[in-house]
Amino acid sequence: MSGSNKVNYGDDSPIAAFATTPGNSALTMIRCSGKGAFDLLSSIFTPSVKDMPGNTVIHGWILADNKKIDEIVLSVFRSPKSYTGEDSFDICCHGGYSAGKAVMTVLKNAGFRDALPGEFTFRAFMNGKLDLTKSESIMELVSAKTETSLRHAVSRLCGSLQNEINEIKNLLVQVLSSAEIYLDYSEDEISAEFDAEASDEIAGRLPSRDIALAALDRLKKLSASWQLERIYQEGVTLVIAGRPNAGKSSLFNSFLKEDRSIVTEVPGTTRDWIEAFVSIKGVPVRLIDTAGLRDTSDSVEQIGVERSRQMLQEADIILYLIDGVQGLTNEDKKFIEQEKSNIKNDSNDRCLFVWNKADITAAPDGFINVSAKTGAGIEELYTSITSIISKQAGQLHDELSTAALGTIRQKNLVDAAYSALEEAISLADKEDPLDLIAPLLRDAVNSLGEITGEVSTADILEEMFSRFCVGK
Amino acid sequence: MSGSNKVNYGDDSPIAAFATTPGNSALTMIRCSGKGAFDLLSSIFTPSVKDMPGNTVIHGWILADNKKIDEIVLSVFRSPKSYTGEDSFDICCHGGYSAGKAVMTVLKNAGFRDALPGEFTFRAFMNGKLDLTKSESIMELVSAKTETSLRHAVSRLCGSLQNEINEIKNLLVQVLSSAEIYLDYSEDEISAEFDAEASDEIAGRLPSRDIALAALDRLKKLSASWQLERIYQEGVTLVIAGRPNAGKSSLFNSFLKEDRSIVTEVPGTTRDWIEAFVSIKGVPVRLIDTAGLRDTSDSVEQIGVERSRQMLQEADIILYLIDGVQGLTNEDKKFIEQEKSNIKNDSNDRCLFVWNKADITAAPDGFINVSAKTGAGIEELYTSITSIISKQAGQLHDELSTAALGTIRQKNLVDAAYSALEEAISLADKEDPLDLIAPLLRDAVNSLGEITGEVSTADILEEMFSRFCVGK
Repeated sequence: MSGSNKVNYGDDSPIAAFATTPGNSALTMIRCSGKGAFDLLSSIFTPSVKDMPGNTVIHGWILADNKKIDEIVLSVFRSPKSYTGEDSFDICCHGGYSAGKAVMTVLKNAGFRDALPGEFTFRAFMNGKLDLTKSESIMELVSAKTETSLRHAVSRLCGSLQNEINEIKNLLVQVLSSAEIYLDYSEDEISAEFDAEASDEIAGRLPSRDIALAALDRLKKLSASWQLERIYQEGVTLVIAGRPNAGKSSLFNSFLKEDRSIVTEVPGTTRDWIEAFVSIKGVPVRLIDTAGLRDTSDSVEQIGVERSRQMLQEADIILYLIDGVQGLTNEDKKFIEQEKSNIKNDSNDRCLFVWNKADITAAPDGFINVSAKTGAGIEELYTSITSIISKQAGQLHDELSTAALGTIRQKNLVDAAYSALEEAISLADKEDPLDLIAPLLRDAVNSLGEITGEVSTADILEEMFSRFCVGK
Repeated sequence: MSGSNKVNYGDDSPIAAFATTPGNSALTMIRCSGKGAFDLLSSIFTPSVKDMPGNTVIHGWILADNKKIDEIVLSVFRSPKSYTGEDSFDICCHGGYSAGKAVMTVLKNAGFRDALPGEFTFRAFMNGKLDLTKSESIMELVSAKTETSLRHAVSRLCGSLQNEINEIKNLLVQVLSSAEIYLDYSEDEISAEFDAEASDEIAGRLPSRDIALAALDRLKKLSASWQLERIYQEGVTLVIAGRPNAGKSSLFNSFLKEDRSIVTEVPGTTRDWIEAFVSIKGVPVRLIDTAGLRDTSDSVEQIGVERSRQMLQEADIILYLIDGVQGLTNEDKKFIEQEKSNIKNDSNDRCLFVWNKADITAAPDGFINVSAKTGAGIEELYTSITSIISKQAGQLHDELSTAALGTIRQKNLVDAAYSALEEAISLADKEDPLDLIAPLLRDAVNSLGEITGEVSTADILEEMFSRFCVGK
């Protein structure tokens, strides 16, 4: 009797999961994989797929107690030519809430178990189908909020990051092996075998120092790439603020209208604000329309204003909207002064002052003219927004021309490799002995190996894949 | 220059649609079909599928301007062996909001147009893949709310209704043709050719009257089947009412807990009530938990109580809950009396009086004992609920042993056929001339032909398929 019923990653038992969201759709897809999957299928599907080769599709029926449960299209994949590398099949059954559920019940009764989150991709990794950077890019793909985020993920899926990591790692291995040569021999032996230049390097300096510096530089660039990649993935928070009736909601709506790639609309948990994800030049922007900011004695409104102020504190970017017809009120002036003194403090220019209703009255200097009503000036506003993002995180780019990081896990490992390598170089420059330096180089190599999964432990993998969605 | 840009059902141009709901899922499926679909695909997919036979699957990349947009699995179907009967393919791309959208944009740019609702199934029908009863059963499948609804739809997809309709129609054609023989000949000619019995029939009575009566009987049964089938599809509304703190919400929750096949939870538009679909013995039950019923001076609560009363009026079934510990209050007694006088009026016994907290105090006669807390008595309550449904609509049945109707369209046509046939028989019994009777028989045959789609017009079809979801 086992004390724990916990299912572990790492077995090859037959698993099943919904690969699409059940809902009011035409079809629902269920993915199945594992050892003996086709044996289990044989009792619940007609016709027989026994003689079907891999990569073929057949139309048939899911059965339970010889009753037809649903008409499906089944795709057969034979090991090793499948996503997981195992015998597997996809069931394309009817959509809605019931058909998929009924088919899933039949599968479970036949002996399939629920797949864990990310378990299909985990198996693909274990079977050598993908390295970890590609595995992670699949999770990125699924959660990509804009087309640019998607393209960056696809770039990693195509191996751009894996290649860069492997190239850097090869440089480090070169450095490490040239260092280890010296460790294996005494100084006398080496001077007999190596030339004068090599002999120079033994005198404390790191062998292949130039290679080490080149690797260090590439690691630095990779690490820096995360700041922008994180923004492409998670997005920035943009809060539209201003006095009541300044036109905040109209501006909010004109963002939604302008942008054809709205990702999702999330009503706030209260009616105090509404938010939506829009894509501004490929950057996912969490757009928040706050309650108007004004001093008020109405207690309900006060709560809204208080929430707005909290939002403002968390905002990456603030659009402060002024009603151009009414002009600057004292409250507007107070906000502007406050925000400008903030800039002096942290030198982070995150606020744009926007003069709305520019179709009626033009703005004084220092304001961006827009008309939420006619849409005039919105394009210029976008440019200002993206220039703030670029200042905060680096140049925006639609296509990745160089490798970039896709997850915080990768970033931490790159940083670990960078630190170890930097220390190794610094010790070498201080002429410290190589047997102190070599372990640091080995740490750096291991960190990079962990990024691709060449070096890994069950714990690391489980932690990583469990953050995937089920069915992936 | 065409004055209208309206796209019509009935062309065979290449169409595309999401077949699954985009969302936080592993995969998204896009369905494409139509003349030249593979030509359009060739410029946006690598590798080439030119030499791939039908019913095969290939892994590859969607491209735009030679850039990789997404890694996909493509299923190839060659005409006529496809769902629509046309050349078609399914794209299985990554899930989430962006990948599917990006792939769809590429497809649209390549020349695919958005599919109209139901257009794939429409084409399947036009290409002789399905009759209309099977087409409609597909829509039923997708919207099935319980496993029983699903099984009934599958039964129709397997042809149970189509066969029954065709059998009845064949009976009517027999009757009609034997009638038409008499119309084609004068009485003299017939008496020379037919025997005395046939000659009798000429004397006003409908030839093959027994066959006509058998057909009439089967139409009647079919028509009656709709009452219950409608319930399996649309469900019944069950309102839980009672004084505040009688345990309504606990009972609501124990329904949800008991029943593993919850379909969806819909929060009410106000906080006055919550609702959920549950399956009670295969019947989709829209469960509504109302605000407590009591006289109150609080204006907000009054609105809630008023809404509860409206819900009660629309309910198919009411569970009136009494707090067993507190016993019957005057308000409870008032409600019970009111409801009982209603029964006298419309002889529709829709109310169950439920004595809650039966784990503490037992109910007097006439009440159903339950404990929402322990779950005791819930099974008996289910039995009482289903017996009310059976009284209202006929015997519940998990599996369809005979043909049953699946849509109101079918029901109306069956009723039209029934009326025409009934009138034909009645005219014949009054010895009216056959040339008045024959057109009625032809109407009946046509109505049945319209059910299967043998007889159809573009308008009828468009009206029907446009109620499908997109991608089906």
